[in-house]
Amino acid sequence: MKIAVLGTGVVGETIGSKLVELGHEVKMGSRTANNEKAQAFAAKFLGKTTAGTFADAAAFGEIIYNCTSGMGTLSALKMAGAVNLNGKIIIDLSNPLDFSHGMPPTLSVVNDNSLGEEIQNAFPESKVVKTLNTVWCGIMVNPAMVNNGDHHIFMSGNDIQAKEKVKEILLSFGWKLPNILDLGDITTARGTEMYLPIWLRIYSATKNGAFNIKIVS
Amino acid sequence: MKIAVLGTGVVGETIGSKLVELGHEVKMGSRTANNEKAQAFAAKFLGKTTAGTFADAAAFGEIIYNCTSGMGTLSALKMAGAVNLNGKIIIDLSNPLDFSHGMPPTLSVVNDNSLGEEIQNAFPESKVVKTLNTVWCGIMVNPAMVNNGDHHIFMSGNDIQAKEKVKEILLSFGWKLPNILDLGDITTARGTEMYLPIWLRIYSATKNGAFNIKIVS
Repeated sequence: MKIAVLGTGVVGETIGSKLVELGHEVKMGSRTANNEKAQAFAAKFLGKTTAGTFADAAAFGEIIYNCTSGMGTLSALKMAGAVNLNGKIIIDLSNPLDFSHGMPPTLSVVNDNSLGEEIQNAFPESKVVKTLNTVWCGIMVNPAMVNNGDHHIFMSGNDIQAKEKVKEILLSFGWKLPNILDLGDITTARGTEMYLPIWLRIYSATKNGAFNIKIVS
Repeated sequence: MKIAVLGTGVVGETIGSKLVELGHEVKMGSRTANNEKAQAFAAKFLGKTTAGTFADAAAFGEIIYNCTSGMGTLSALKMAGAVNLNGKIIIDLSNPLDFSHGMPPTLSVVNDNSLGEEIQNAFPESKVVKTLNTVWCGIMVNPAMVNNGDHHIFMSGNDIQAKEKVKEILLSFGWKLPNILDLGDITTARGTEMYLPIWLRIYSATKNGAFNIKIVS
């Protein structure tokens, strides 16, 4: 499948590498066509990946992974262009973390709104599915690295078929079907984004970001 | 031990009943001395519990459990009176859930503040320890009811000795020592309070509030 990975940070690189490993064609998008990290990524997987602007990548991809940092997400997607995003699934991995007031970061949107919703509202013709934003990127693409893969991941989105497709992708990443919890429509992204503050405190207390939560009942 | 339970709702009743079972003397406090629920609770455990105002209960207790609803917590503690709270541990089980905008509730304080901190700031001579606010009250006092008690509970507070005492109490409730995670000072209550939105969405998706999370790494 042709896939756009927007964002050249460690999340974009990790997701992009996994997608290449799974046999997909990846175009990594960034603010400028000659971004060094995107070029290096494309060179690393020569013939299987390319690099370009956000718009280049979004035009190329049948599915779009938003791996940009939360504070830059809306401007990045605006640069990608609605015309290149319309009708497509946007898998949103970002969190609205605001580092401008020091550490730990706060959230730039909370309570009665979320970044997932802001994306959906800005691009009503796209199908936004928020997922994977509750774990470190190493676990995103390799859930088996902790507890034999027995822990939970969440999904939020308005489009049932888009969520079914994303579920297939999560399965291909190694997530187990009973551990993929569909929380409901995109407003439930408020829950997973507001989970970040406790994630950050657990990380700080344990000095280990390679963890996840398993729901027990 | 003489203990004050502030709040006559299901959390106060559940905590109070467990404390009586463990052999403690409990005084349940409420806004009025003749609160029906507090009277009924006292009558249920005749000779082991009494009822009174918030101030009566706080004056009686060597340790204070704040089981009031979050939006009423600060006014309840003000009625309890600093003179009756000074030097004592306040175990804060509340969450700043604001139901005034409909369901699910939002949080009245987020990001760079928390209810736990507001209590600590309002009563600087008390030792606030935030804990148990991430689970349904049935699990608070009976963690063994899910996954053989193997799941996590958090603590936030500025006073090391107070947290050691609260750890003993959690052990007496059935929590396992390796599963009691001290997140740090009272500002880390921001993390556990902001966990509530995802708790509420998991509850809504699974129709089951008798769950908790186990950290796996």
